[in-house]
Amino acid sequence: MKVGELIAAFDPVETGRTMHEYMARLYPICRSITGDGVRQTLRILQEIVPLDVHEVPTGTPVFDWTVPKEWNVRDAYIKNSAGERVVDFKRCNLHVLNYSVPVRARMRLEALREHLFSDPEHPDWIPYRTSYYAENWGFCLSHRQLQALPEDEYEVCIDASLEDGHLTYGEYALPGETPDEVLISTHVCHPSLCNDNLSGVLVSAFLARLLSRTSPRYSYRFLYIPGTIGSITWLALNEDVVPRISHGLVLTCIGDSGNFTYKKSRRGDAEIDRVVAHVLQQRPGAPKIIEFFPYGYDERQYCSPGFDLPVGCLMRSPHGEFPQYHTSADNLDFVRPEYLAESLEVLLEVVAALETNRTYRNLNPKCEPQLGKRGLYQKIGGQRPEATRAQQMAMLWLLNLSDGRHTLLDVAERARMPIARLAETADLLVEHGLLRESKS
Amino acid sequence: MKVGELIAAFDPVETGRTMHEYMARLYPICRSITGDGVRQTLRILQEIVPLDVHEVPTGTPVFDWTVPKEWNVRDAYIKNSAGERVVDFKRCNLHVLNYSVPVRARMRLEALREHLFSDPEHPDWIPYRTSYYAENWGFCLSHRQLQALPEDEYEVCIDASLEDGHLTYGEYALPGETPDEVLISTHVCHPSLCNDNLSGVLVSAFLARLLSRTSPRYSYRFLYIPGTIGSITWLALNEDVVPRISHGLVLTCIGDSGNFTYKKSRRGDAEIDRVVAHVLQQRPGAPKIIEFFPYGYDERQYCSPGFDLPVGCLMRSPHGEFPQYHTSADNLDFVRPEYLAESLEVLLEVVAALETNRTYRNLNPKCEPQLGKRGLYQKIGGQRPEATRAQQMAMLWLLNLSDGRHTLLDVAERARMPIARLAETADLLVEHGLLRESKS
Amino acid sequence: MKVGELIAAFDPVETGRTMHEYMARLYPICRSITGDGVRQTLRILQEIVPLDVHEVPTGTPVFDWTVPKEWNVRDAYIKNSAGERVVDFKRCNLHVLNYSVPVRARMRLEALREHLFSDPEHPDWIPYRTSYYAENWGFCLSHRQLQALPEDEYEVCIDASLEDGHLTYGEYALPGETPDEVLISTHVCHPSLCNDNLSGVLVSAFLARLLSRTSPRYSYRFLYIPGTIGSITWLALNEDVVPRISHGLVLTCIGDSGNFTYKKSRRGDAEIDRVVAHVLQQRPGAPKIIEFFPYGYDERQYCSPGFDLPVGCLMRSPHGEFPQYHTSADNLDFVRPEYLAESLEVLLEVVAALETNRTYRNLNPKCEPQLGKRGLYQKIGGQRPEATRAQQMAMLWLLNLSDGRHTLLDVAERARMPIARLAETADLLVEHGLLRESKS
Repeated sequence: MKVGELIAAFDPVETGRTMHEYMARLYPICRSITGDGVRQTLRILQEIVPLDVHEVPTGTPVFDWTVPKEWNVRDAYIKNSAGERVVDFKRCNLHVLNYSVPVRARMRLEALREHLFSDPEHPDWIPYRTSYYAENWGFCLSHRQLQALPEDEYEVCIDASLEDGHLTYGEYALPGETPDEVLISTHVCHPSLCNDNLSGVLVSAFLARLLSRTSPRYSYRFLYIPGTIGSITWLALNEDVVPRISHGLVLTCIGDSGNFTYKKSRRGDAEIDRVVAHVLQQRPGAPKIIEFFPYGYDERQYCSPGFDLPVGCLMRSPHGEFPQYHTSADNLDFVRPEYLAESLEVLLEVVAALETNRTYRNLNPKCEPQLGKRGLYQKIGGQRPEATRAQQMAMLWLLNLSDGRHTLLDVAERARMPIARLAETADLLVEHGLLRESKS
Repeated sequence: MKVGELIAAFDPVETGRTMHEYMARLYPICRSITGDGVRQTLRILQEIVPLDVHEVPTGTPVFDWTVPKEWNVRDAYIKNSAGERVVDFKRCNLHVLNYSVPVRARMRLEALREHLFSDPEHPDWIPYRTSYYAENWGFCLSHRQLQALPEDEYEVCIDASLEDGHLTYGEYALPGETPDEVLISTHVCHPSLCNDNLSGVLVSAFLARLLSRTSPRYSYRFLYIPGTIGSITWLALNEDVVPRISHGLVLTCIGDSGNFTYKKSRRGDAEIDRVVAHVLQQRPGAPKIIEFFPYGYDERQYCSPGFDLPVGCLMRSPHGEFPQYHTSADNLDFVRPEYLAESLEVLLEVVAALETNRTYRNLNPKCEPQLGKRGLYQKIGGQRPEATRAQQMAMLWLLNLSDGRHTLLDVAERARMPIARLAETADLLVEHGLLRESKS
Repeated sequence: MKVGELIAAFDPVETGRTMHEYMARLYPICRSITGDGVRQTLRILQEIVPLDVHEVPTGTPVFDWTVPKEWNVRDAYIKNSAGERVVDFKRCNLHVLNYSVPVRARMRLEALREHLFSDPEHPDWIPYRTSYYAENWGFCLSHRQLQALPEDEYEVCIDASLEDGHLTYGEYALPGETPDEVLISTHVCHPSLCNDNLSGVLVSAFLARLLSRTSPRYSYRFLYIPGTIGSITWLALNEDVVPRISHGLVLTCIGDSGNFTYKKSRRGDAEIDRVVAHVLQQRPGAPKIIEFFPYGYDERQYCSPGFDLPVGCLMRSPHGEFPQYHTSADNLDFVRPEYLAESLEVLLEVVAALETNRTYRNLNPKCEPQLGKRGLYQKIGGQRPEATRAQQMAMLWLLNLSDGRHTLLDVAERARMPIARLAETADLLVEHGLLRESKS
């Protein structure tokens, strides 16, 4: 099966619905950069794709970093003097400052305040805050709730452990005809946040499932890793794999209703950059193609100067630029099945474009070949139904530019024509002996 | 005589009138890709320029194609049952589907219909249709006429022959100082259509006549060929000439009132592309400079990947983009003498630019030379009549950029100044010993 | 002391006031391309900066030119028949056509007229006119005054000498760590005109004074020369210095209220071109960055093809484009202290940018280094005061692009961030062992 056939058979309604159901199962789990939340998540993803789970011990040196302690939290709350849980981790895991050290104490509101985090700009939402690399504890709550807290003596409890253990990540490698790899990387460390990044995780897993039914030209590698430390760890342990990475994407915030945003790789003109831009520009809507900047998600690590990999980042609404970002409002209503499905479809088109982006040579390079005698041209000059016009232009562009120096993507960009149409037409011209693939 | 002097002596009114008179003589002839119509046309053109007529036998293999049979038509009509000619080739040769096989038959309207071609969008105009490479017969008529045809038994007659013979084309080669050639190619295969392409044919012929009075640097080759098969045939029979083609233009639709349109060569940055853009941008009006695409006229063949010649296409209204295109409305009223003359003038400017586009070296490259002591600079600082300002700036630009690496065209583009003015000024500076031509 | 510290300590009010006071002293002096006016001017400048005065004898051949005679004028007037001075050099030295030959004569208005210059467009202003390289004499006066002159017999007197002598110029060389030089050139030949070019002369002198308090990386050379012949003379006598000129600026018309205008060097992409554009774009206001053209001031000579030095021209309102240009309205009111000070500040920023524009290498190129453990990163993920955000982004950009191939300027342009901030941040990262300078 070819990727193009996957696209033809793709059912967005059914696939979107299934992805969203998985999201509903993954949503309540309290994930962090280490700990059982990631393990539970990967176990559920294994229902979709047979990924391997890797465990890297705390203390393992990974470039300038060290794999941190494993964090697990069982319960966390703030009780008032009446013994009522006024803030309760069990209602929403965002309430606990992610990676908090354990604490059990009684304190007046004044002392408690410096451990409470809220967002006055969105007073009904619970913000998501972390303290990974500085030991601290705290609670996040809506600003309205914070303001309503009366003077009282409170009991605070974070029943968590921060101990030697492991960093856990998932990996699925799909071998292709060539050892050259396409890397799809998503961070799996965020707790109850849907767009950031259950959307990326699920779109990646369903892409892996669909691709596993094909015999691709490229090999594909899917990573489900904690942000930053996960990609650093993977890169440190897989330096031998790195030279094979020919193209890559980080997926994040890919399930909301926003238009697509593509952040280019550090190189800026990598094939993946051009392919994603081309695919998005051929679709309805107005995609935003933005330049690389060294902030964001794991593309920061893949694009660090010692690697400089051709890895971009595909999003819908960019992280940090939608109000729901890193709040309790990034929930199962904010991400919808149809957007997940559309994002997956875009990725299938990107993969199809990478798979088919070859270089051809016109076997009749001097003047046009006579298409009419091969039944490839309209018969009455001046009469040309719109349906065949595009096909004919695709043939003429391919014949004109197939000099062994232009890839299909080059032709697609110059002709402003979908690469998928050109790929189909190239097959037709190869069948008729007019083109052959040009091995570089 | 130099080309610049031709321009100075050019009389647009007289020349436009003469071209239009020739057009009126050529208009009624029924041309096709082969046959006597082309021969008659070339005989008339020989009054303007001493071109050679070449005859290539039917069946001659030319790359992927074969020279087709020769088509000649003497008469063609549809008669109603009353014996009246309701469609009559003798009134307008567009009525016959060009390259129709002979037919003599009686048939009811229903059967006849599939051989009738009209254009509902322009119900009063007769469309131009062809069937060169698939044997067929038919009639073209206005949509209003088609709709008015009553049920009846009709007699159809196309008194044509499609037999072994020749493909005919005209060629005029004007030798210059160097063997490097400028190719001017026009298709001569269209019947009673003025803009497409009697305009191209006549502007080319008059350009040839004018240039023949000069001693040009380049050699010039003018081709009058049937579209597509003509350029393919010429290229197949003249592969030894091809490497000498340094610049080229296809001329078509160059007699209507539209602004100029220049379609660049496949290379996109050839000298001819830059020269034509420069000449057009220095004139009033808003020219359209468009990228190459592998559709259109004979530039498709010249720019096929096995040749990739620096040949663009100069038009006024682009083919296919004006409603009169390929209809009976592309007539002697649609093309006017003043537009033919203006197009010829543009071509003279293009040729002059090619002829003068040389590279110079400043013989006083360190600081500016003292122009004042040579009488080349205004005397009172701060007083400078507008008339001399442009001349002085031309001198300063030439002196500044004449380092042996900038052509006059480079200077013209950077200074946004007509290359003709720079060429004159370069002559002046050479006279004063300040510049010399730099042979590359 | 570093240039950055100069900027921090810079007092625009005090410095602007002082510059304008010097301008008031220099304003009345009648300067020309040779003569005592330049000498007096340089003597006053020596109070600011210890420049050397060079005297080049009349007749010295300098490339295609010859050092001209020395011109000195003591008095000049037109008296009416009543013996009244109706035009009087002593009231305004613009009244005399600069470089006039001596004359003493009586004549009727009609004969006098061809020696009178006025500007009808600005009838109240006296125009500035010169006749350097053609022997002539004349008077400049307001158009209103010219029109009011009654028929009369007039006595004209220009008590001037035009004799063998010297061309005088000033030069101040400040040695730096490297022999590579930054050239700052201003023309000092204009009489009572403030913006053109006492503004350039004084901003240059004060820049020299400030820089002389630092130990710069580059060597700096400040030239105070007559326009055109001065730079030609200096270049001719200093060809051995030319190869050391790494960056340069001509300063003119830099004291009016207009926005900044930067005219690029002939190269167009020299480091100085990019530095000045960057500095201006980081400031409020809308600078105009324009391409080189071979007209203007001494950049014409520095950018002649035999030298092609990376020398641009910094202005506020460009010469020739403000109505006061080369008239008596270019006076001490037109140039204001605050604009002089701002221009000097821009130049300090340009110099600071040149001084700090180095290339670095990230010593942890694989993935980001862990900034948090070095106290260089915010502690609570998601909380980041605006104040530290820019600093963090500067660190991330530097780490990402410091691969030995990007200068600080490259980083500044790509990150759209002031190079000064990046330079500070680079120092911080060097301190923490994360970057080191990469010697090319």
